[in-house]
Amino acid sequence: MIDFWFSIGSTYTYLSVMRLAEVERTQGVRFRWRPFSVREIMIEMNNIPFRTKPVKAAYMWRDIERRAAAYGLRPRLPVPYPLAQWDTANRLAVLAAAEGWVADYTRATIRHWFENGLRAGDEENLRATMQEIGQDFDRALALAAGPEVGDSYAAATAEARSLGIFGSPSFVVGRELFWGDDRLEDAVAWSRAHREASR
Amino acid sequence: MIDFWFSIGSTYTYLSVMRLAEVERTQGVRFRWRPFSVREIMIEMNNIPFRTKPVKAAYMWRDIERRAAAYGLRPRLPVPYPLAQWDTANRLAVLAAAEGWVADYTRATIRHWFENGLRAGDEENLRATMQEIGQDFDRALALAAGPEVGDSYAAATAEARSLGIFGSPSFVVGRELFWGDDRLEDAVAWSRAHREASR
Repeated sequence: MIDFWFSIGSTYTYLSVMRLAEVERTQGVRFRWRPFSVREIMIEMNNIPFRTKPVKAAYMWRDIERRAAAYGLRPRLPVPYPLAQWDTANRLAVLAAAEGWVADYTRATIRHWFENGLRAGDEENLRATMQEIGQDFDRALALAAGPEVGDSYAAATAEARSLGIFGSPSFVVGRELFWGDDRLEDAVAWSRAHREASR
Repeated sequence: MIDFWFSIGSTYTYLSVMRLAEVERTQGVRFRWRPFSVREIMIEMNNIPFRTKPVKAAYMWRDIERRAAAYGLRPRLPVPYPLAQWDTANRLAVLAAAEGWVADYTRATIRHWFENGLRAGDEENLRATMQEIGQDFDRALALAAGPEVGDSYAAATAEARSLGIFGSPSFVVGRELFWGDDRLEDAVAWSRAHREASR
């Protein structure tokens, strides 16, 4: 089992979210989806990779475009960025993880963001997403805003911090941390090698 | 031809420097070694990836350790960091590029840094490096400190800036920029595809 730590709002997270199902099918590994607030941790670290760095941001979009093409994805770049409702998007993921529909929700909301230009967390995106995955919009939004989800979200972020996570996506296999969509294959290889070694 | 833009002093640059010769042998591509001051550009951009971010720095060393092992390299990590004589190390690379010994110099000085714990740019490292590659220490240091090398170093850094380069190592194929040792294979694939397309 590979823990997939992610925040909706991170750009490179799109690539991982869209290809995890295929990796599971072809590589014989399983992912546990772990939403958390990477934004909270990045603010603590004063880690601002793109917002104040236009040259780096321009490279990031081109890099995502090339890698998306290699994966057969067709995002409309650059997408609206950053998100306005980052926490709403991720609190819904926390609710969805508890109720068993986190992969469907995250894929759908990020696809609407990256392929249809609708910011994740915004009402238009969320209405389309919830309809698509068969979840009740009002019920989900009310629960996601509640204290139980708030506590789970804070606990997940604290756990991520304790694991040394500082970015999204991150993959954790045992005690090994891999950061970035471009380390997904390394995490899979580590998981397979570790599993075989322990047989 | 792939332009390999690098600064001695960048940690991940070690991985690329140590494997470019093997990539050339096996992949049928050629690299042109282009030393520049990534530090000057990063200061301009207020881009501080590790110095003030201990959690991210700890991950960086572990990531380099894993990837080095995958490439058959055996660095002694963490290495002394950052360099004290960053500019000396890179001005020597500029001189070496003009005189045709840049690959030998850079590999030797970075290997002494990463495998023997001697900071690149420091006298002890440079004496060992120059002896190893058959260059005269006093002559090289005097020329590297001179105005001609200074002008070339500034011009290279300006050219890197104009290409949108913000980190080391970077690879440029035509107008495509690839940043990071982990994009070396992408740059090679791009170069090969482009060359085949233009035949």
